[in-house]
Amino acid sequence: MDEYYNCRTIEFKNSYFSQGFTFVGPKEAEGKLGKFFDLTTLDDKLGQKTFEKAERKFFENAIYGLVNKCGIELSQVDAIVGGDLLNQIVSVAFGVRDTLRPFLGLYNACGTYVESLIVGSILVDNYYDRVICLSGSHFSTAERQYRYPLELGVFRSPVSQWTATGVGCTLLANNSLNNIRIVRATIGRVVDYGILDLNNMGAAMAPSAYDTLLNHFTNTNTTAKDYDLILTGDLGKLGKSILIDLAHCKGIDLSKNLADCGASLYHPSQKTYMGGSGAACSAIVVNSLIYQNLVSKRIKRMLVIGTGALMSPTTSFQGESIPAIAHCVEITSD
Amino acid sequence: MDEYYNCRTIEFKNSYFSQGFTFVGPKEAEGKLGKFFDLTTLDDKLGQKTFEKAERKFFENAIYGLVNKCGIELSQVDAIVGGDLLNQIVSVAFGVRDTLRPFLGLYNACGTYVESLIVGSILVDNYYDRVICLSGSHFSTAERQYRYPLELGVFRSPVSQWTATGVGCTLLANNSLNNIRIVRATIGRVVDYGILDLNNMGAAMAPSAYDTLLNHFTNTNTTAKDYDLILTGDLGKLGKSILIDLAHCKGIDLSKNLADCGASLYHPSQKTYMGGSGAACSAIVVNSLIYQNLVSKRIKRMLVIGTGALMSPTTSFQGESIPAIAHCVEITSD
Repeated sequence: MDEYYNCRTIEFKNSYFSQGFTFVGPKEAEGKLGKFFDLTTLDDKLGQKTFEKAERKFFENAIYGLVNKCGIELSQVDAIVGGDLLNQIVSVAFGVRDTLRPFLGLYNACGTYVESLIVGSILVDNYYDRVICLSGSHFSTAERQYRYPLELGVFRSPVSQWTATGVGCTLLANNSLNNIRIVRATIGRVVDYGILDLNNMGAAMAPSAYDTLLNHFTNTNTTAKDYDLILTGDLGKLGKSILIDLAHCKGIDLSKNLADCGASLYHPSQKTYMGGSGAACSAIVVNSLIYQNLVSKRIKRMLVIGTGALMSPTTSFQGESIPAIAHCVEITSD
Repeated sequence: MDEYYNCRTIEFKNSYFSQGFTFVGPKEAEGKLGKFFDLTTLDDKLGQKTFEKAERKFFENAIYGLVNKCGIELSQVDAIVGGDLLNQIVSVAFGVRDTLRPFLGLYNACGTYVESLIVGSILVDNYYDRVICLSGSHFSTAERQYRYPLELGVFRSPVSQWTATGVGCTLLANNSLNNIRIVRATIGRVVDYGILDLNNMGAAMAPSAYDTLLNHFTNTNTTAKDYDLILTGDLGKLGKSILIDLAHCKGIDLSKNLADCGASLYHPSQKTYMGGSGAACSAIVVNSLIYQNLVSKRIKRMLVIGTGALMSPTTSFQGESIPAIAHCVEITSD
């Protein structure tokens, strides 16, 4: 990456992370962070006829869950911004349909949640009072859209990750008593190191996380030590170690305070290999465990770096490599 | 629509429509607006092996065409925001890959261009100097992704529209000598009147255009008469007449100054039935003919309403109706 092509960092004055809500599937509920989620289900079809219809219901229920938790009416929400992994982001589009709230559809694959925090922050920092930012995914819809029919029982690669099922949503507001603020953001660019292995998303995405992180450090004159936590979205265990190596080559030590949402989501016994992935991954971790640690001020300053792999089955069939993107937000609680 | 659920209108102080660039396919070049486009091609495959690869090239070339036309370097562009119709919006994601500029992927189907103008305006109004907003589509990729293989030679329905091939892009800046400004925006909500006919996008989208238009009029205390032009994205001839009827029921007369990009794009002899559609449609019309009329001040105040149908082939197979969305920007030139 040419240093000349810098990515500017944005500063927000009034973007408050007012509240979070999470609704997850059974595997996530049984995972390491199970007790931190707001709502869980034993039936990842939610009584629907198809997994796709269920995914839409996850979105619907998460939105209503969030406004109930906040004690506000939907009419007090000025906009909903977010996306999901399905073609034409139909899960979120159908999920917001009954809310009658203004909607901006976003897509940066599994980086969509942090993208939604950036677009939401820009809105509440200048024009709106309250915006819901959200993102989600479903293992069974993603698997059949991106990979193979579930019924085929394909062997999973040891470097593969498991698409998380659930939706995480955040109420951003232009003021909040909890004082948890999104203070800065660096919008990422598309980075492509030529990775072709569709099972190895961590390797495809780690360089983009590195690029955005480096931009954020440079622009804000900070180093890894300035943050209690640097949290990537879904690099998984392998991608996380690649990011540590890439940073190490530049003399940056990420080994102390780097964590990955995907790598933290499941127990090893759950056989997710490199961990979780998907547009739900960062959304459900940030809006549960992380939010609670921000409220308790155990975390005072952190970065969330949402990572997304921007290929489609069509581009892969046509021999293209996997471009990736990573967006970064800086959150403070003091 | 419940009046209680109002959509707020945003006001911009410093969002200038600095320049536009359009790159279109042969059918569009032969159409009514052919002479207004910057770049046209006789080969809609652009020498590529697949139409999908060609669509990415349309994006790439349009971006470089725009920065050349503006006489700026890519490094002076702070971000690129936009989308396309292909699954995972890969055309724009691959199209921006080599630019190394920060990128926000957006998706609201054929309403994406106006969505990109809104997100871009919010950025230049507050944080950035220059943002490229863009959207595009390709007849041959959209046709096989959403409908049938081209080789099948399926009969087209008389209410169908033709997905435009091309990319339109805009340089938004926080100042510009031309004084063409995006002054206000109303973000639309998902509206679903239960239309099931996949050939009749105009009927599915007209109610959403009506809803957003009504919100914009109410919030800004304006009426149709206050605008030289009210321009919808791709309602087509049928959708346009439905919108006129819907407005008429509320006592609003749109018959004088409503035009539709899709309905204006082709000659009747080109057999596109209800006209053009696709994410390129509003992008190529606004950045050619409309931009030139704003520069010459023949248009002094106008609305652009980008309309999008938010279904996917999967939702339609599963029996869902077609939800739609419409975003509105108000542009002035004096």
